[in-house]
Amino acid sequence: MRFRQKIQAVPRQAELSDLLPVAGFRLGTVCAGIRYPDRRDLVVMELAPGSRSAAVFTQNAFCAAPVTVAREHLQSGPPRYLLVNTGNANAGTGAQGLLDAARCCELLAAGAGCESTDVLPFSTGVIGEALPVEPIAAGLPEALAGLADAGWQDAARGILTTDTVPKGASRRLDIDGHTVTVTGIAKGAGMIRPDMATMLAFIATDAAINNDLLQACLERAVAGSFNRITVDGDTSTNDACVLVATGYSDLPAITAANGNYERVCQAVAGICDELAQAIIHDGEGATKFVTVAVENGLSTDECLQVAYTIAHSPLVKTALFASDPNWGRILAAIGRAGIPDLDLAGVDVFLDDICIVRHGEVAADYTEAAGQQVMDRDEITIRTVLGRGTVSERVWTCDLSYDYVKINAEYRT
Amino acid sequence: MRFRQKIQAVPRQAELSDLLPVAGFRLGTVCAGIRYPDRRDLVVMELAPGSRSAAVFTQNAFCAAPVTVAREHLQSGPPRYLLVNTGNANAGTGAQGLLDAARCCELLAAGAGCESTDVLPFSTGVIGEALPVEPIAAGLPEALAGLADAGWQDAARGILTTDTVPKGASRRLDIDGHTVTVTGIAKGAGMIRPDMATMLAFIATDAAINNDLLQACLERAVAGSFNRITVDGDTSTNDACVLVATGYSDLPAITAANGNYERVCQAVAGICDELAQAIIHDGEGATKFVTVAVENGLSTDECLQVAYTIAHSPLVKTALFASDPNWGRILAAIGRAGIPDLDLAGVDVFLDDICIVRHGEVAADYTEAAGQQVMDRDEITIRTVLGRGTVSERVWTCDLSYDYVKINAEYRT
Repeated sequence: MRFRQKIQAVPRQAELSDLLPVAGFRLGTVCAGIRYPDRRDLVVMELAPGSRSAAVFTQNAFCAAPVTVAREHLQSGPPRYLLVNTGNANAGTGAQGLLDAARCCELLAAGAGCESTDVLPFSTGVIGEALPVEPIAAGLPEALAGLADAGWQDAARGILTTDTVPKGASRRLDIDGHTVTVTGIAKGAGMIRPDMATMLAFIATDAAINNDLLQACLERAVAGSFNRITVDGDTSTNDACVLVATGYSDLPAITAANGNYERVCQAVAGICDELAQAIIHDGEGATKFVTVAVENGLSTDECLQVAYTIAHSPLVKTALFASDPNWGRILAAIGRAGIPDLDLAGVDVFLDDICIVRHGEVAADYTEAAGQQVMDRDEITIRTVLGRGTVSERVWTCDLSYDYVKINAEYRT
Repeated sequence: MRFRQKIQAVPRQAELSDLLPVAGFRLGTVCAGIRYPDRRDLVVMELAPGSRSAAVFTQNAFCAAPVTVAREHLQSGPPRYLLVNTGNANAGTGAQGLLDAARCCELLAAGAGCESTDVLPFSTGVIGEALPVEPIAAGLPEALAGLADAGWQDAARGILTTDTVPKGASRRLDIDGHTVTVTGIAKGAGMIRPDMATMLAFIATDAAINNDLLQACLERAVAGSFNRITVDGDTSTNDACVLVATGYSDLPAITAANGNYERVCQAVAGICDELAQAIIHDGEGATKFVTVAVENGLSTDECLQVAYTIAHSPLVKTALFASDPNWGRILAAIGRAGIPDLDLAGVDVFLDDICIVRHGEVAADYTEAAGQQVMDRDEITIRTVLGRGTVSERVWTCDLSYDYVKINAEYRT
C-alpha cells in the first residue's frame, strides 16, 4: 500500500507572474490582520467608469451577508469597486452581518468618493463569527493607495483560505488587429461543490460588451467550469463569480452575439476552466485529479446525477486515494444514482482507455494489472457509457485522503 | 486538538451470549476459507416446514447476483434455507455470478433434500470478483451437520466483513400467557446507506403470522431503522433483510392486524432499531454516534433531505470527529439541501439541548463553551427545526475519521 502525497498543483498556477493587466481594472491588496497577522487578507478592485459587470452567486439558502448585500447593490447600477476579505465569511451572522457588510461598503465608498451601493462586498473564511470591521476599516486606505493595474498577483493571494497555491489565468486575443485581454483569479479548496454559481472568482476583460451579453457569457462559462467541479459536495454559503468588462480595449463595442463575442466568450470559458481545474488540483488533501465523464445519457440531469454520485462517493474517493482499481465501488455508485429503468446491459465503464465493465459486467479482457496501471496515474478519467441517449457530461473531482480529514478536523484550531 | 478513539460498541452487542433461540429456526456456521483461512464465513439457516418469510432487498440498480436469485426463488414459495457467505459479494459478476449463486443453492438443496428454489442466497464482501464456489461446496456438509437452535451467536460472527463486533438482539414477549420470541442478527459497517432495504439482517420469530402481515411488519420496522441510517451515503449492492415466522410458538396464528400483531411488530421494530444502531456504533472509523433530527417540515421527503444532507456532509462529519462545534457547516448543509422557499427566519438548530441557531442566525445566548461541551460527548443529537410544517424525521449516522479513510483505502490489500 503506497499512499500518495499531495499532487503538484498545475505548475503554471504556482507563480502567476504572467497574469496580464486589464486596462481599466486596478487591484490593491493589504495585510489587514482580519484573522491572522502578516497575511494578505483584504483586496480592493477598482472598475473604471463605464465598466459593466455580470455576477453569479451561491444558491445556498443560507447565503452569506455579503452575498445578500452584493445582490442588492447590483440593483442600483454597475459597481465601481469590489471589496474582498478572507479569514471571515460573514455567514450565519444574521442582521448584524448585513450591517457589517454594508458598513464595509460605506467605509470604502467614503475613501474612494463614490456611493456605498457602488461597492460589492465578498467574504470568505470561517462561518458564524462576527466580521471584524475595525481591521478592515484600518486597512482600506492602504489598499486604495496601492491600486494598480499589476495588482492581480497579490490579489490572487489575498483571497485564499485553505488554498495552498494562488489561482489565476490570462488570455490575450487579437481580434481584427485589436487586442483584447481577459484575466481572472479564483480561490477555493474545500466546501467545493458550486451550485449554479461558483467559488470566489474575479475575471476582467477590457472588451466592451453590453450587459445581457456579458451575463450570458459568464453563465455559459460558469456552467461548464465552476459548476462542474466538486471536492466534497458541500456547497459554500459565499460562492460568487464576477466578470467585469471595462471597455478600455480599442475593439469596437460588442452589442450582438457575433463572431467577436464568441471569441471573447471562449477566452472567458477557457479561463474559467483553468481556474476550476486549479481549484480541484488544490482540493483539500487531493492527490489525484479525476475527470468523471458520463456519456450517452437521456438528459443532462441524469448524466450529472451519475457523475456526481460517483464523484461524491467516499468509497470511490478512498479507492482513488489508495490507487486501488476497486471498480465495484464505481458500479455500486452508478447503481444507486437513482436513474429510472437503467438497463445494466447497456452500461460500459472505462478507467482512461481500459474497459472495466462491458454490458454491465466485468469485461472479458479486463485485468487487475491494466486497472492498476491507470490507477497509479496522477490524472484519471472514469468514463461511464449509459447507452440510452445522446447527452454527455463531465465533472472534475479529487480523491479523499487522510489530509482532507486532517485539514477539516483542524480548521478552526 | 484531541482526536478520539473508536467508540465503544454498545456493550451488550459485544457478546451476544443472551441471544434467545427461536423454535423452528436453526443455524450452522463454518470456516469455509472463502477469502481468509480460519474465519467463520459460511452460514446456513434452516426454517422449519410451514415457516413464512418476508424480505426486502437493496434498490441499487447494480444489485448483486444473490439478490436477483433470492428474489426469483421467493416467487416459487416459502424458503426452507438461507445461505449466507461473507468474503465475496458476488456483485458485478454478470451471468457467471447468477450461475454461481444458483449453483450454491443447488448444492445446499442436494445436501438438505429440498428444491434449489427453497434456498435463498446472500453474499457480502468484495465486489467484482468471481464467487469461489468450491470452498462453499466443501463447507456445506459441516454447516448442515452443525445446525442448532443455539447457533445465533456463531452466525452473527459468520456474516461480518469490516465489522468489529457481531450484532444481535432478542425480545421475549408474553402474550395472553403464550411466549413469543424474536431474535435477529445483522452485519454492516461501511457502504452503509440502505435505500428502501437494509444491510444483511436476519430476524426470526416463532409467532405464526400470515404473509401479508409479515411483509408489512418487516417493512414498517425497516423504514424506521435500517432505512434511517447512513455511514457514508453509499448504498450497497447486496443489502437484504429477512424476517422469518416459524409458527412454533403456541400463540394462536396472527391473521389480522390486531393487538397481538402490534406487539410482535413492536418487538421486530425494536430489534431492527437496536441492530441499526449497532451498525452505526460499528461504522467504519466511527468515534461518535450522531442522531440527526429534523422537525416541523412540510413532508417526510424534505425532512429526510435535510437530515441526509447534514449526515453526509464531509465537513460536518470531520467537525464531529474533531469535537469542533463548527455549526456554520451544519447551517451550510441545511442551506444546500434544496428545500424550496425555505424561510431562514423560521429555522432553529440545536446541539443536544443547546440552541445554536435561532430564527436563522446564531442564538444570542449561545457560547462556544456550551457548544464544546456537547461536542465532547460520545452521542450527539443535531436537531433542526424547520418551522414550516408538522412532519419530523431522524436518521442515525457517525463521524468521518482518519480510520474511515484508512479502512477503505486498505480494504483489498
